[in-house]
This record gives sequence, C-alpha cells and structure tokens, in this order.
Amino acid sequence: MRELKEKVLEGNLKLVECGLVILTWGNVSAYDREKGLVAIKPSGVPYAEMTADDIVVLDLDGKIVEGDLRPSTDTATHLEIYKAFPQIGSVIHTHSKWATIWAQMRMDMPCFGTTHADFFFGSVPCTREITDDEIDENYEKITGQIIVETIKKRGKDPISVPGILAYGHAPFTWGKDVDSAVKNSVVLERIAEMNYYTLFNSKAPAPLKQSIIEKHYNRKFGPNAYYGQEKHN
Amino acid sequence: MRELKEKVLEGNLKLVECGLVILTWGNVSAYDREKGLVAIKPSGVPYAEMTADDIVVLDLDGKIVEGDLRPSTDTATHLEIYKAFPQIGSVIHTHSKWATIWAQMRMDMPCFGTTHADFFFGSVPCTREITDDEIDENYEKITGQIIVETIKKRGKDPISVPGILAYGHAPFTWGKDVDSAVKNSVVLERIAEMNYYTLFNSKAPAPLKQSIIEKHYNRKFGPNAYYGQEKHN
Amino acid sequence: MRELKEKVLEGNLKLVECGLVILTWGNVSAYDREKGLVAIKPSGVPYAEMTADDIVVLDLDGKIVEGDLRPSTDTATHLEIYKAFPQIGSVIHTHSKWATIWAQMRMDMPCFGTTHADFFFGSVPCTREITDDEIDENYEKITGQIIVETIKKRGKDPISVPGILAYGHAPFTWGKDVDSAVKNSVVLERIAEMNYYTLFNSKAPAPLKQSIIEKHYNRKFGPNAYYGQEKHN
Amino acid sequence: MRELKEKVLEGNLKLVECGLVILTWGNVSAYDREKGLVAIKPSGVPYAEMTADDIVVLDLDGKIVEGDLRPSTDTATHLEIYKAFPQIGSVIHTHSKWATIWAQMRMDMPCFGTTHADFFFGSVPCTREITDDEIDENYEKITGQIIVETIKKRGKDPISVPGILAYGHAPFTWGKDVDSAVKNSVVLERIAEMNYYTLFNSKAPAPLKQSIIEKHYNRKFGPNAYYGQEKHN
Repeated sequence: MRELKEKVLEGNLKLVECGLVILTWGNVSAYDREKGLVAIKPSGVPYAEMTADDIVVLDLDGKIVEGDLRPSTDTATHLEIYKAFPQIGSVIHTHSKWATIWAQMRMDMPCFGTTHADFFFGSVPCTREITDDEIDENYEKITGQIIVETIKKRGKDPISVPGILAYGHAPFTWGKDVDSAVKNSVVLERIAEMNYYTLFNSKAPAPLKQSIIEKHYNRKFGPNAYYGQEKHN
Repeated sequence: MRELKEKVLEGNLKLVECGLVILTWGNVSAYDREKGLVAIKPSGVPYAEMTADDIVVLDLDGKIVEGDLRPSTDTATHLEIYKAFPQIGSVIHTHSKWATIWAQMRMDMPCFGTTHADFFFGSVPCTREITDDEIDENYEKITGQIIVETIKKRGKDPISVPGILAYGHAPFTWGKDVDSAVKNSVVLERIAEMNYYTLFNSKAPAPLKQSIIEKHYNRKFGPNAYYGQEKHN
Repeated sequence: MRELKEKVLEGNLKLVECGLVILTWGNVSAYDREKGLVAIKPSGVPYAEMTADDIVVLDLDGKIVEGDLRPSTDTATHLEIYKAFPQIGSVIHTHSKWATIWAQMRMDMPCFGTTHADFFFGSVPCTREITDDEIDENYEKITGQIIVETIKKRGKDPISVPGILAYGHAPFTWGKDVDSAVKNSVVLERIAEMNYYTLFNSKAPAPLKQSIIEKHYNRKFGPNAYYGQEKHN
Repeated sequence: MRELKEKVLEGNLKLVECGLVILTWGNVSAYDREKGLVAIKPSGVPYAEMTADDIVVLDLDGKIVEGDLRPSTDTATHLEIYKAFPQIGSVIHTHSKWATIWAQMRMDMPCFGTTHADFFFGSVPCTREITDDEIDENYEKITGQIIVETIKKRGKDPISVPGILAYGHAPFTWGKDVDSAVKNSVVLERIAEMNYYTLFNSKAPAPLKQSIIEKHYNRKFGPNAYYGQEKHN
C-alpha cells in the first residue's frame, strides 16, 4: 500500500497548492479495488507535517489495517461512495470557497457554460437535507448514503458527473484516480465561482441547451473524443 | 513576560501572513492570568520592523509595566474583554475584509453552513451602536463594555462563539491562547465571505437547523468530540 | 517558423503567468502572413512541459506542415478568424474568469469606463447561439464563422475591438501580434470584472457617452495619439 | 531634483507591489514647492524598465525642465491639482480595481465604516461629467479643473479627503508626500471594495453617523490624536 499512501499524501498536498484548502479542511482518499482497501488522510493533522506514514489504510467496513492515527472524520462518507460505485478510485472532500457557497445555498448548480460541460455532464446535484434521526444515528455514514441515493435518484453516472454538493455542508468530488479527482475538484471550484456570478445577474439565463452540453462533454470524453493527445484523457 | 511577548509578536505577524491585515490594521494581545498582565502590540508600528521588545505589557487597569512605546489604541477594548471573561487568553482585532463588511452591514451573521458550525456555535453577533455620549466619554473602553454586554445579553459562551462584529467597525476575535485566537480570526474571515455570498443570493436560505449546528460543533469541541487526534483540539 | 513557434510558446506561458489560464484552458496562435502559415498550441499538453517543438504549424486549410502533436481543438476557429481578417497576426482563446462569466451571461459587454475605452472602442459583442445543425456539422469551424459574422454584422473593426464573447462559452481575443493579443486578453479580463460589478449595482448607469469613448481610444490609438513614447503603441 | 525623482520612481513601483496597477495603468508625481517643480512618471514606459533618469521634471505650466521622455498623459491633471492646493506634495492616478468600479458607477462613495473614517473624513466625492466642449478643448487639464471645482464646491479639505473619483474614469489620490499619497491609494482601494459590498446588500445601511466619523478621524489626525507613536502620523 506504500504507493497508494504516497499518492494520497500527494493529492492532499495538491489541494493546498491549488488553493482549495485552508487549515485542515480537506481530505483525499484512494481505493485499491484489488485489495478492497482505502487509504485516507488522518484527522486534524496539519498538511505541512504530514508524511505518507500518517496515511491510514482501512477496509470498506472501516476496519483499520495500517496506521497509528485516527482517520479523517469523514471516512465513513468516503467508504459509502466506494461501496456503491466501484468505478471510482479516489474521493475528495474540501470546503473550497465557491463550491461550499453553492452547498450553503442548498441548490443544484445549473450548467451555464461550456467550461462546466467540458467536465461535468449537466447540473451538479445538491443532496437532500439530513433528518434529525439520521444525524443521531451515524452522521458521516448516512451523509455518504444520501450522496449515493442522490446520484441514483437523479440517474447520474458518477464518472460523468464527478462531484456533488452536500446540503448546507460542502462538496465531495471523485474520479478514476487521485489525479483525476484533484482535477475535478479544481474544475468544480472554478465553475462554481463562474456559475455563481452568472446566476446572480438579474438577467441570468436558463442553462445551456442540451446539444451544446453533449458536444463539449463528448469532444473531451465521448467515444469519438478529439481533445488532447489521446482518445480519452 | 518574554515568552508571552514573543507569542504576541508571532501572532501579529501571523495575521499579516494569513492576509487578514494590511498596513497596521490589526493587533493581537495575550493575557497571563497568573500575573494579571496583558501583552499587546504597540500603536502604529509597521509589522516588518516590530520586535518582541516593542510589545507593551500592562495590568488590567491599563497601567504599563513594561515597554517604551504607546500600546495599541484599542488596548482598553481588549482589557474589558479579559476582565469580563477570564477564560479568554488572547484577543485579536483586525479590519479583515469580509468580517469588516459584515460589521459595516451592522447585522448578526447567521450560520448558513457546517464550516461555520465547526468553529462558531450559531450566529456571530453584531454589537449595538455606541451613543454620542459614550463616544465622548471613553470610546475604546466602552467599545469593550458593549462587546461584553452583547455576549451576555445574547446568552453566548465566549469560548464557543469566539468573536463578534463591532457595529460599523470591524471584528474582535479571541481564544484560549494566541494560536486559537489566530485560527478563529482566519475562520471568521472565511465564513464571513462564504456567508455574504449565501445571504446575497435572492433565494438565500434560512440558517441551518439547530441539530446540524450542534452535531458539527460537538464532533469537534463537545464532550465526545471525535475530530483530530485528541479528544479536544 | 522557429521564431514564430517560440513566440507562440512564450504567449501561451504568459497567459498562465497573468492568471488567465488554469489547467490547459487557453491557446495562443500566430499567423505568418507571408507564408500563409499558422503556429498553434498542441491540444491538452500541460504548459509546464511544453516546448517550442510541440507547437504545431498548419496552413489556413488546417493541413499540418510541422509538428507531431494534434493541434488545439479550437484550431478551426482560429483559422476562420485569420481567413476573414488578415490584419490579425495572433488569436487567443482562454476561459479567463470574468470574460467567461460575461460569455455565460450571453450578452454584449457595454463600455462603462475609460479603462475599457482605452483599449476596446465601444461594447464587446457576444455572438449568437450556435444551432443544433451547426453543432453537428463542424462545431469549431462554425464557431469561427459566427465570430466573423458577428464582427461584420455589428460593423466593428477587429483591430479596434480586439475580442469577442462566444455565446455560453468564453472569450476569443486577438491583435496585430502575440504581444498585443496577450495584452488585449489581460485588458479584457480586467474590464470584464470591473464592468460586471458596475452592471450589477442596482443604480447601474448607461454606457459612457460616445465622445468620451472616442477621446480615450483616440489619445492612445488615433491618428494624433499622444499616449506613450511613440505615436502609436 | 535627484532625490524627488527617486522618490517618484519608488512610489510608482510601490503601486505595482501593492497590486493597484497592472500594465502601465498608474502614475505618481511629486511637487517641490520651493522650486515650483513637479517630477512625474513618463508615459507608457513599463515599470520593470523604468529608472530615476526616466522621470520627467516640469514647471507648473507644463514646461519640461529635465528628462528626455514624454511625461504621463495625465500630467496636466496633476498640475491643476498642485496649482489649486499647494499643501499637496504628491498626486497619484491609478485604475485600481474597486475605486475604478465606484468611478464607473459615477456616484459619491458614502462612509459606511470606521476603516473609511480613519483616513477619509466623510464621503469620497465623484466629479461631474465632462462636457463635449471640454473634451475637445483640453481634456486632461479640464479633468484637473473639474477635480478642483468638485473639492471646492463640496467644501472638502483636500488633506482630510485625500482622493476623488473621476466620473466614468478612475481615482486620483494625493497626500503631503509620496508615502502618504501611496498609503491613501491603498486605503481608498480597500474601502472601495468593502463599501461596494456593503452598499450592494439589499439591507445596506445609511452612512455612519457624523459623531463616530469624527471620533475615528480625529483619534488619528485631529489636534489631540492618540494613534501611533507620534501626535500626528
């Protein structure tokens, strides 16, 4: 698991470098599908002092198999996402500014531009509010279940809509691996900012039409993609 | 008092580093409960030239016991806060951008998200307006008394709501020590920004429900806290 | 073509340095009018790894004459602009934040101040929406044709209005050479931000009057220009 | 004049360092009252290449007495301000973002907070619109005359209100010397941003009451000032 732990460390540090995280407000995990194990950031450890040895390894039931530190408080949320969507290889939670503002507005984020359509196929959903009973039961695990429930109910493919707004909380993003999950976090933050200002204008337009959303998403990620130097990137 | 003066210097420089202060617009003090003494930044001295020797030490009546420079203009405000709430070990005043915007809007800042609830238990109060007679009498001392009056009237615990908006002026924050007061200043500035944009949206929601505020505050600071590597951080 | 490729590389890196581009969201091309050849950034290559050898050279029909990499996805758009307006020597496409917000608002950007009038003679047009048939036909080429159509229909001189907002997408800018196109991108981004906040204020004024727009544009670029150390800069 | 030219160079570079200027959008001048001479930035020269030798020296009629370069396009505006208010020792013109947004909104900037009152005694005026005849006659000189006319008509003391918004254009600021004029530019930009967001909120309050504005201005600059280490700073 050495390599995965180093990748998870690198992903966490990358969040700070990209300006998505202040204090200790972000955590990256990665999933080794073969072994059924997840590597995740420890709780409340400053990024500047973190080493690969601090990364905690658990199975999908949350049983720690490597590491001396307590894992991220949000670990149970990450695990629910991996259990429901095994095609996901990395999950990220941050309180990045603009995505969090959308989560605080507690509404889906419409697709207002092709920058959005290049990476997120249509609107980014906001989850439903958690009930008081659910808070008392197992807050972080049920947060993950509500994320899974939302994606399924909306009929979204988690690979083509690689992120969600947790109601009144903040974003969760993901991808096939750590690099792609970090990139999706960067993109979500930027489109959240641009979409906020678009929404806010009194003449704010309806979402982009579906045909242009499809064109932009597919020229990057569709079966006949022609962006970049490879077929799919 | 050497150690406290160095800690106060470090806190002042940290405010600049975190982008909370331009020019000389911020001051940090710390309180030595045993000795009944407060160490505070001198007035109008550029941060780049400040040394621990410049930090002024006073008793709670404002009598200088160490230091050749005039203490911060806001010293009397700091002293009123220490006198009323001896559990506080450090007070900070800045004109950080977004917290000052809320102070200029002269309204309480509601809790719109869990980032806020993670550090401030419920809304951040704004003080009442100072009267003309109070301005003439002893402006800075009465500013401190109004802060104390506001916290008491609202039934707030100053440790779980570690900051306030001074009406038409700017924020005061505090904590059990300098590190915690600096962290609370950083958090207040970030949530002030995110809450501004949440409020501003025409569909701005009501504050978060109390149960989720309690969950988030308590998982970090409550008796059964499970965030970070220690019980309480 | 060595010199042009180095200039195109330099222009691409300058966009990153000026904060106009994150990830790989920008592309610069330059046109050698004598040879009828265009040098352009390759698709999806990180800026940090890009060398002058990676820059692709094509003729105006899109036939690659130098380079092993696939050219920018937006190449066909650049080519249409060079074909219609041979006075243009460099074209730039970015998703810079504020210009993209205007593109997402899908409206012309009025001239609200002399900073705008110093560089863009009057409003910056937004193109019409692309039709579904046009998307299916040749998306990038028709995007370029719509840009050309918009400039011509509005009676704009592409040198005195050196940029446009592509409907729901992002800005395209240009200039007589790479340096001037980069400068126009920087200016467009800054005036897009200032104009957004001007528009947004409930008392937002009408555009500046024509006489002041003419005065400011002409003192920099008119036949009797007196800004800078040369007649025309 | 060597010393004054070096001070003017330093002031110009300080504007860039403080983030008030991009490209060549700012100019600083200083006035030697004894000699009746003004030193000012040359027009359109990049800051990175500028030396003290490039600074142009003129008399109050605009006659160049030192320097080989053309002075700033805005020189005539600076001269009118020195002629009317000889207590001013330095004038600065920038297109700093937020002050320019207020100029583009073409309205006086009210005093919404004590940060503003600490440096600008009451609202910052916006000039009237220039007429078409005035544009044709001598644009920059009349811009200066309108600034002077505005300050006088409003009954403002240019030392206690050290700046103005030129209608549809951008700010001019000043001070007793270059350091003070630079500081006033930094302050104007910061309060312009905070006041914008205060104004913008639908519950935006009336300006601060006069008594608190007087208290804050006078504790820094009044006859019994007690801010900083000297009586007046």
